[in-house]
Amino acid sequence: MSIFETLESEVRSYSRGWPVVFDRAQGSWLYSEDGKGYLDFFAGAGALNYGHNNPVLKKALIDYISRDGVTHALDMYTVAKRDFLEALSETILKPRSMEYKVIFPGPGGANAVEAALKLARKVTGRESVINFTNAFHGMTLGALSVTGNSMKRGGAGIPLVHATPMPYDRYFDGAYPDFLYFERLLEDSGSGLNEPAAVIVETVQGEGGINAARLEWLQGLSELCKRHGILLILDDVQMGCGRTGPFFSFEEAGIEPDMICLSKSISGYGLPMAITLIKPELDVWSPGEHNGTFRGISPAFVTAAEALRTYWSDDALEKSTKAKGERVGSVFKELVETYPSAELVAKGRGLARGLEFTSGEVAGKVCAAAFDRGLLMETSGPDGEVVKLLPSLTTTEAEVDQGLEIISESVKAVLSH
Amino acid sequence: MSIFETLESEVRSYSRGWPVVFDRAQGSWLYSEDGKGYLDFFAGAGALNYGHNNPVLKKALIDYISRDGVTHALDMYTVAKRDFLEALSETILKPRSMEYKVIFPGPGGANAVEAALKLARKVTGRESVINFTNAFHGMTLGALSVTGNSMKRGGAGIPLVHATPMPYDRYFDGAYPDFLYFERLLEDSGSGLNEPAAVIVETVQGEGGINAARLEWLQGLSELCKRHGILLILDDVQMGCGRTGPFFSFEEAGIEPDMICLSKSISGYGLPMAITLIKPELDVWSPGEHNGTFRGISPAFVTAAEALRTYWSDDALEKSTKAKGERVGSVFKELVETYPSAELVAKGRGLARGLEFTSGEVAGKVCAAAFDRGLLMETSGPDGEVVKLLPSLTTTEAEVDQGLEIISESVKAVLSH
Amino acid sequence: MSIFETLESEVRSYSRGWPVVFDRAQGSWLYSEDGKGYLDFFAGAGALNYGHNNPVLKKALIDYISRDGVTHALDMYTVAKRDFLEALSETILKPRSMEYKVIFPGPGGANAVEAALKLARKVTGRESVINFTNAFHGMTLGALSVTGNSMKRGGAGIPLVHATPMPYDRYFDGAYPDFLYFERLLEDSGSGLNEPAAVIVETVQGEGGINAARLEWLQGLSELCKRHGILLILDDVQMGCGRTGPFFSFEEAGIEPDMICLSKSISGYGLPMAITLIKPELDVWSPGEHNGTFRGISPAFVTAAEALRTYWSDDALEKSTKAKGERVGSVFKELVETYPSAELVAKGRGLARGLEFTSGEVAGKVCAAAFDRGLLMETSGPDGEVVKLLPSLTTTEAEVDQGLEIISESVKAVLSH
Amino acid sequence: MSIFETLESEVRSYSRGWPVVFDRAQGSWLYSEDGKGYLDFFAGAGALNYGHNNPVLKKALIDYISRDGVTHALDMYTVAKRDFLEALSETILKPRSMEYKVIFPGPGGANAVEAALKLARKVTGRESVINFTNAFHGMTLGALSVTGNSMKRGGAGIPLVHATPMPYDRYFDGAYPDFLYFERLLEDSGSGLNEPAAVIVETVQGEGGINAARLEWLQGLSELCKRHGILLILDDVQMGCGRTGPFFSFEEAGIEPDMICLSKSISGYGLPMAITLIKPELDVWSPGEHNGTFRGISPAFVTAAEALRTYWSDDALEKSTKAKGERVGSVFKELVETYPSAELVAKGRGLARGLEFTSGEVAGKVCAAAFDRGLLMETSGPDGEVVKLLPSLTTTEAEVDQGLEIISESVKAVLSH
Repeated sequence: MSIFETLESEVRSYSRGWPVVFDRAQGSWLYSEDGKGYLDFFAGAGALNYGHNNPVLKKALIDYISRDGVTHALDMYTVAKRDFLEALSETILKPRSMEYKVIFPGPGGANAVEAALKLARKVTGRESVINFTNAFHGMTLGALSVTGNSMKRGGAGIPLVHATPMPYDRYFDGAYPDFLYFERLLEDSGSGLNEPAAVIVETVQGEGGINAARLEWLQGLSELCKRHGILLILDDVQMGCGRTGPFFSFEEAGIEPDMICLSKSISGYGLPMAITLIKPELDVWSPGEHNGTFRGISPAFVTAAEALRTYWSDDALEKSTKAKGERVGSVFKELVETYPSAELVAKGRGLARGLEFTSGEVAGKVCAAAFDRGLLMETSGPDGEVVKLLPSLTTTEAEVDQGLEIISESVKAVLSH
Repeated sequence: MSIFETLESEVRSYSRGWPVVFDRAQGSWLYSEDGKGYLDFFAGAGALNYGHNNPVLKKALIDYISRDGVTHALDMYTVAKRDFLEALSETILKPRSMEYKVIFPGPGGANAVEAALKLARKVTGRESVINFTNAFHGMTLGALSVTGNSMKRGGAGIPLVHATPMPYDRYFDGAYPDFLYFERLLEDSGSGLNEPAAVIVETVQGEGGINAARLEWLQGLSELCKRHGILLILDDVQMGCGRTGPFFSFEEAGIEPDMICLSKSISGYGLPMAITLIKPELDVWSPGEHNGTFRGISPAFVTAAEALRTYWSDDALEKSTKAKGERVGSVFKELVETYPSAELVAKGRGLARGLEFTSGEVAGKVCAAAFDRGLLMETSGPDGEVVKLLPSLTTTEAEVDQGLEIISESVKAVLSH
Repeated sequence: MSIFETLESEVRSYSRGWPVVFDRAQGSWLYSEDGKGYLDFFAGAGALNYGHNNPVLKKALIDYISRDGVTHALDMYTVAKRDFLEALSETILKPRSMEYKVIFPGPGGANAVEAALKLARKVTGRESVINFTNAFHGMTLGALSVTGNSMKRGGAGIPLVHATPMPYDRYFDGAYPDFLYFERLLEDSGSGLNEPAAVIVETVQGEGGINAARLEWLQGLSELCKRHGILLILDDVQMGCGRTGPFFSFEEAGIEPDMICLSKSISGYGLPMAITLIKPELDVWSPGEHNGTFRGISPAFVTAAEALRTYWSDDALEKSTKAKGERVGSVFKELVETYPSAELVAKGRGLARGLEFTSGEVAGKVCAAAFDRGLLMETSGPDGEVVKLLPSLTTTEAEVDQGLEIISESVKAVLSH
Repeated sequence: MSIFETLESEVRSYSRGWPVVFDRAQGSWLYSEDGKGYLDFFAGAGALNYGHNNPVLKKALIDYISRDGVTHALDMYTVAKRDFLEALSETILKPRSMEYKVIFPGPGGANAVEAALKLARKVTGRESVINFTNAFHGMTLGALSVTGNSMKRGGAGIPLVHATPMPYDRYFDGAYPDFLYFERLLEDSGSGLNEPAAVIVETVQGEGGINAARLEWLQGLSELCKRHGILLILDDVQMGCGRTGPFFSFEEAGIEPDMICLSKSISGYGLPMAITLIKPELDVWSPGEHNGTFRGISPAFVTAAEALRTYWSDDALEKSTKAKGERVGSVFKELVETYPSAELVAKGRGLARGLEFTSGEVAGKVCAAAFDRGLLMETSGPDGEVVKLLPSLTTTEAEVDQGLEIISESVKAVLSH
């Protein structure tokens, strides 16, 4: 491993918890170069909802590359892009009666967020944005300014301004009315709050500790935004593409965000791709006012279109995700009850699940114990105190059980010390 | 084309000048879905230095995908990443005696720039950055703040601060000593210039109008930075990977930037990838202080390693690039002389070449005339007044001549009107 | 009055409610040029705690001017400044065992606030400041950024950053624990709140609507600041110099702010003067790092020293202020009870008193009715809904009663319409 | 002096060079408490153009105070303010055919500057301001952001943004065309310069080292601003009220600034007062959108009106100022010639004069030598390398000669060491 240590910056992190060199991958499994298999309950931080190297998508990808389909196309018109747009329209937007236009903002989730923030400010003529406690939206300067984590914010080296944090759902354990403080500040012309251009929100905070907002909280937020003429940006980068069950994580809340950010699993195959969906009336940028080199990555369009048609033409995946999610949830509930003195908390929705420990130290030990037993999981939350599960949605029930067994053993091993 | 117009945001731009739907590509050629071939002298805005779907890289890519090599790997250790690091070390860094550490900052050039800016501010404890007139560094908030174009800046919707523009090389046509104003401001404790953390510079400004800085200017800038303890960030996103001849565009100047940003052609195949090279002593971030989903795109590592070994183990590509560049330059010189009243200016270095017209309108007409004749070229410069050539470095001499012929005809057609 | 309308900017405001030309003043009375007397319950917005042209101070002032005492002295040593410092030390600081150093920050309250903010940021190396809903700290850019009123903020023309508003005492009518949100944001490393350099607070928000914080809230705030290493800046510009009874408005809370801003009544005679008191360990500025033309206004030092010795060598003024304040409070309470359907609220402490109406329109009518009856009062609060009383502390009991009688009549006249 | 050292912040500065305690003052003389007289060639940093305790103004002031004229009046209509406005209109504005409205922005020069910057941003909807190298405009956050001195800027504790410095007149000793860089940046849409709301400029930079702009430079700047729709703010705080000869320092240039800031000598007696003059079409603030406690300091209005009528009803003062200025200039020229190896430079216009030495150390020694001989002078410039003369305009010719004699002796004493 010496070349990694010699040549790669110390900023690398995942490799520290999983000190092996991975080579191949298939479905829910990653294999190190010595052939050992690891059950992957992290799935590229949510970028691999359809599993590693999904064979349906792989076939489409190899076919496309083999026939010399355009690979790199900026924002030119291509057959691959047209096919993706058609698939998006037919399988996702039309069935849900959603009217949105598509921005290709650049290759990653942070690009989707930066585009949304820029456009919201341009449309409203205001600068300020409301974010939420423990939000995570990315590492570029605009996205970082609406991110909560103080260590990551400290990396910026300049004061991050133009964003004001509000309490996320149940930040005070439900003891206080939702949005009380937020709405009071908006209504009080003497509050000192700069009038916001937009609110940016995740339905389940993945990096923030698998905090799942209640549907009524999301509905309340949406209504508040409408009442006050504030744009609602829904960052569905990690929770979209079926992670919580439905394609969009906010569907069950019945809300209509003004902008929606998608990335991670949108390409289906783990290739970089992002889109920002915007209400048609917000489409005010001039040609080229936002651009970038990697906005027309055709191989990603190909696997994205294939994934949409394969998995979103019916509700089979949604149902199975919910079922598997409930299976995880019930095992986590058992763990909570088995170790009352450990004060565990089971969190999450769909296949975004978390098990909160009393400290990052304990949660880290559980992940390390699981790694020793061949399972990949990560921690999240402000102090890394939550063990986070984001298995591929295509993980089989047997694999889910296998992983949960390892988790139970690992928790036992750590807590009985 | 209706779905593009219905569903895609009006911000799309290249598709407006080239209103056809592209399907396949090979080498220097793009093919529309009706089978018509277009000679591509734009090459993904510099992302396709080795041509579309380069067969050597294509083979490595399909092999890797076929054998289920890991596709998405965050910043885990992988065989693919190790191979890329080894190729980078062996073909590029060691032969040049360059000591740098590698940050994988995210999938695009803007990520490489954002990482460099963040780290420079963190290291120095200062906020201000010096950029240059007509610079282009990206569209995320940090990168945009050091970009010159006012239309693109206006897209941000907030005042872009912490950057001060200085005149790029020959901004005043050589009438004034280089860095006179810059250095005076630095030395005068009453100048009002915030002490800069870093200078960010391109050796040839691609988007800015193919402005090629003289080597002595780059040397002067490097010395100025050293004298004043300012970090020098070299944005080689567009001009690196051999665009001007040598692998790094600054090699002939003999300077040693503190940070180097690479993207576009680093993967070789047009797949999103970026790296930020930093001097070892700047490696101060804690693990995870900068992160992101798309930092370990193994297929890109595979084609990147293959490209480095194929094209940079000897100096053949460098020599051929220079030769073809001189060929373009001599034809441009002829055009300048043929149309004295048109006040054309030939610009550029290596295979980054520009032909400046008196207005963006004329330059746009030339590109349109070329498109009608089957050649793809774009304009650049503050008013789009420069016809910009960035052909693949692997374009054959015959193709170069074919393209130059079309350009000559197009210029004639437009100017004789 | 035509020259005012022709030559003075439309930004003038008090003159609109009191459209007469004032000429002379004495004690609690202002006289228009036609000789009509107005009982002044506004007292220069708190700048005239000892009444207009207080005869004791007037004598000292005329003596000083007559003997050609230095008038303007920058920050030179002068006999007048020495005398002020001695009076401050003997009558105020020593009796209260307060150890502070004195900055002369410029002539007005905003200068005192700007100096405190600048120094707090310099000392801590942090940029962010916590202010409170409905705070008012001044109109220069630094002071304005921590001020709540949206109309005044809008005057800046740039986004005001680096400040985050927190709820002032009883912002939610006591239904929620104090500092719950504030402290949670501080303790949660993922909250997204920039670590604050300082908290700036008024004990009674004058401009904000005569909101008087409870002593236990101030104590809680002070303890919170200590726990988190945040500097506490007490803006006593309007409420200091005895307005609420004791010399400093925070004395009864028993807290020790890190910085204290005084202005308005510190000179005693209505002459511009301000000081910022800082804990000795915060005295880190180099000579001249903060300066200004009007920091040594000797006539103001002369009246300031005289005022301190005359009014603060014993507790007579403090007692009489409290007694008069209670008299005002009991009459306000009667008004609240007399008009239950008007939903009046009596507010304030000492001789900073307010009567809140349901709208700014009604409150404005009450002030207008009072003006017609020869009494000067102003409104405050985010919508101007609070009639604000800041009579001179030297107003006689008979004058207090006379004014209260006019107020009762005015309220009756307006509410019975 | 112990109480100063014990109680006053270390930020005090003038007192360090003049370690005596001043008591009385008259005309051009300050007297320490032991009765020693000092000839004052600093005159309150330009706040005492009519001398200390000018007897004409003193009489008016004592009369006003004695008859209980209103002292403190916020922005109410008063007889004193009306009289000042009439005097300003009759003696200054009408004779010069100047149409401006008057803002009373607060008590000091920084308030006048803050008001101008805020209003310029509000009117134009832009945030950026152009300032000049070695500018000084004040110490509040807005004014400080357009000030050059790095030590003073460092006092802010936050990055000062929204201002870009341009070279002041002859910053490069006249070797390059004026405004070349500035105008090129404005015209080039790719320059990266944020479109400016305003330019703020001094005609002679007092704190910056007595740099006197040529009239044609000021004219060029005014025309540039007109061409580009940028507001021109003329900061005449130190150089106005006759310091360079005419009432406004820009009169001889024949330009019409959009806003003019006056303070320091406007009250005539050293009392705090400031005004911002604005073109009528810029009068867009709502009532109260900018306010403050010390905007209606009637004693200052009284002395200001008296000063205008006494000194500006004819051109006697202007002529005498120029004559005395030339006297100073010719002596300085002699010194330059007497000590060729010392590389002295004589600077300035009217009675704003400077003698530049090769270092701040030498200039400081000259001031110290002068102090020992009974003359008060200060240094200015980025490194304190300029001995600065701002004597009262009412200094007699004999006193001018007496002071110049001391200067010559002091220079000799220092240089011959």
